[in-house]
Amino acid sequence: MILKTRLFTPGPTPLLPAAQFAMAAADIHHRTPEFRALFQKVIGQLKIFVGTQNDVLLLTSSGTGAMEASVSNLTSPGDRVLVLSAGKFGERWADLAKAYGCQVDLLEAPYGKTFKIEDVKAALKPEHKALFVQASETSTAVSHDIEAIAKLTKPTATLLVVDGITGLGTQRFDVDGWGVDILIGGSQKAVMIPPGLAYLSISEKAWKAMETSTNPRYYFDLRKERKNQSKGETAFTPSVALVAGLGAALDYIAGQADGDLAKGRDALIDNAQVNARATRAGLVALGFTLFAPDSPSAAATAVAVPEGMDSGEVVKALKTRFKLITANGQGTMKGKIFRVAHLGFFDYLDTVAFLGAAEHIAKDTLGLKVEYGQGLTAAQKVFAAASK
Amino acid sequence: MILKTRLFTPGPTPLLPAAQFAMAAADIHHRTPEFRALFQKVIGQLKIFVGTQNDVLLLTSSGTGAMEASVSNLTSPGDRVLVLSAGKFGERWADLAKAYGCQVDLLEAPYGKTFKIEDVKAALKPEHKALFVQASETSTAVSHDIEAIAKLTKPTATLLVVDGITGLGTQRFDVDGWGVDILIGGSQKAVMIPPGLAYLSISEKAWKAMETSTNPRYYFDLRKERKNQSKGETAFTPSVALVAGLGAALDYIAGQADGDLAKGRDALIDNAQVNARATRAGLVALGFTLFAPDSPSAAATAVAVPEGMDSGEVVKALKTRFKLITANGQGTMKGKIFRVAHLGFFDYLDTVAFLGAAEHIAKDTLGLKVEYGQGLTAAQKVFAAASK
Repeated sequence: MILKTRLFTPGPTPLLPAAQFAMAAADIHHRTPEFRALFQKVIGQLKIFVGTQNDVLLLTSSGTGAMEASVSNLTSPGDRVLVLSAGKFGERWADLAKAYGCQVDLLEAPYGKTFKIEDVKAALKPEHKALFVQASETSTAVSHDIEAIAKLTKPTATLLVVDGITGLGTQRFDVDGWGVDILIGGSQKAVMIPPGLAYLSISEKAWKAMETSTNPRYYFDLRKERKNQSKGETAFTPSVALVAGLGAALDYIAGQADGDLAKGRDALIDNAQVNARATRAGLVALGFTLFAPDSPSAAATAVAVPEGMDSGEVVKALKTRFKLITANGQGTMKGKIFRVAHLGFFDYLDTVAFLGAAEHIAKDTLGLKVEYGQGLTAAQKVFAAASK
Repeated sequence: MILKTRLFTPGPTPLLPAAQFAMAAADIHHRTPEFRALFQKVIGQLKIFVGTQNDVLLLTSSGTGAMEASVSNLTSPGDRVLVLSAGKFGERWADLAKAYGCQVDLLEAPYGKTFKIEDVKAALKPEHKALFVQASETSTAVSHDIEAIAKLTKPTATLLVVDGITGLGTQRFDVDGWGVDILIGGSQKAVMIPPGLAYLSISEKAWKAMETSTNPRYYFDLRKERKNQSKGETAFTPSVALVAGLGAALDYIAGQADGDLAKGRDALIDNAQVNARATRAGLVALGFTLFAPDSPSAAATAVAVPEGMDSGEVVKALKTRFKLITANGQGTMKGKIFRVAHLGFFDYLDTVAFLGAAEHIAKDTLGLKVEYGQGLTAAQKVFAAASK
């Protein structure tokens, strides 16, 4: 039988056709008025999408490039920093900070959990140059409470640097009100285009800190980018097709709310949250165990398979039988959990399709005692309640 | 919430991405060796897809153009023909034959039904120049028994002309064995590309009949096309992008069976049939009435709404609430039935998504007393049995 490929991974996410067309049409040179107009339009849209009056810069790199830029531009060798880590991407903050010679104080939460705010409060010291954290820890599909963490850093000299790569478009931020100094996004996530672009908002507090940083930096020199990007150009050759695609995707998101991008972004967040709730309800009804029941991310749902089973078998069966691509656990989580995404260009009928497939796999691959419809109906009830 | 457009109409059908890419790349001139190579490859593929040793020609027109070509090339004014009509497209055969001055004998079956073979046998006269019929009457989603009809015409001088526009790729034909003189297909159906191309197979018996036809014809002169197309060119400018897309789609269909296009076509037919069966089971379980229970087409399913309800409300609700596009009834069937398609690039999870949406509409728009999962589970059982 025909099998359509269905991407349910938390990045890359399904591509928006309008963005694909814009990318295919992007034959403009990057040192022209045409590109400057496109670039300035997209930067303006990104500021609304991120929800900030701060500068927003675009980098031609993956999200990790913007994470590195945050470390290399804000810190100097020997600086003490606090890293909050609850998964693979928290560990990446620690690795990056160490690579640039920081003294890293690490506050860890177990995989599948978030941090207790009193622990963060106790760990935060006046000498911390910066606090690095994820908004959504993609490896475990856990959401962290950035608002509560920002309340601790805002009155201090410590900079708050947030990896919002899968948080943007799945949870709400008040960047300027809360005092988030850097918030990072990536193109292959909620904004529905392929990988290759990162974006980040940068506060005045962060710009000031950059003046004293002694780290070497060139490609990721944010001061140089600010100077260029304020004139509509990038310091180095940008990923022109992705910029065009990003503009089309942000147009689409604005189109969800009659052209109001801030409202469209909120609708996108609600969309991810309803699909995440429906998916969780469906999987729980099928007898699966949520890996992060207490603080689940709306970017993705992490699902533990029953003891003695290999989550890779679920990922493989979904792919083989339905061409439905989910993600296995990463690192030590491999084989224990699988992850199914909701961020970006997913709709409710995608969730229905996923759960329909999951029911066949639960019965036939895992041999669980489930009835057809057991997960689907739970999801349908969530949707019906949400769409009232 | 995000709503993806989902086309469930029996033409146009969902586009195959690989065909879209081939169309976008099709910048070749149509009087070059490159185009001739492409064209001859596609004609070779079409002969396998149709399943015939007869000539197959491509026309830059909708399917109706090939229907007209069949009438204008095979008949002369005053010829007596038999039209089997059970819906809007049967009526089109009658209109076309009358437009070209034929004396039309009409055998009608009620909408939603097929013909009794004994009635066809009784209606067929030696003086009938041709018998015109649909393989699948798209307006009522009824399948007609072409094999049985061909058994009646084969030993006679009467030409059998079959509109297979939604029959090809949804039901099996033995064109040469049965003696189907003309079998017509359209691009926007099982072959997964946009409208704009028709194709037809033509038997030697049909070619002979053309020699005596006195009808005027120019654009649709099949003898002229045969002469040109045997050399890899068309008599008039062809729809180059669609030819390229068609080639890519036929490559994809062959790819369903390791490059064996005949087997891939059969897999495509099975795919439509399983999805049609699953859809019928799901809709019946939800309390809908099948409009054509006795001889349903696998191209689409026609569903009657309960007395006093308007099928347009279902079509509208599916579109408004889920951006899921189905088709209302045509002509006198408007408001009484709606149609959901299975032909071409549909997979089982599309069927799951459709039925998930249909359950919400059944409850909320039609106010039917249904439980969530009632239709879905019936479809899941059909799929599970079929995929054993």
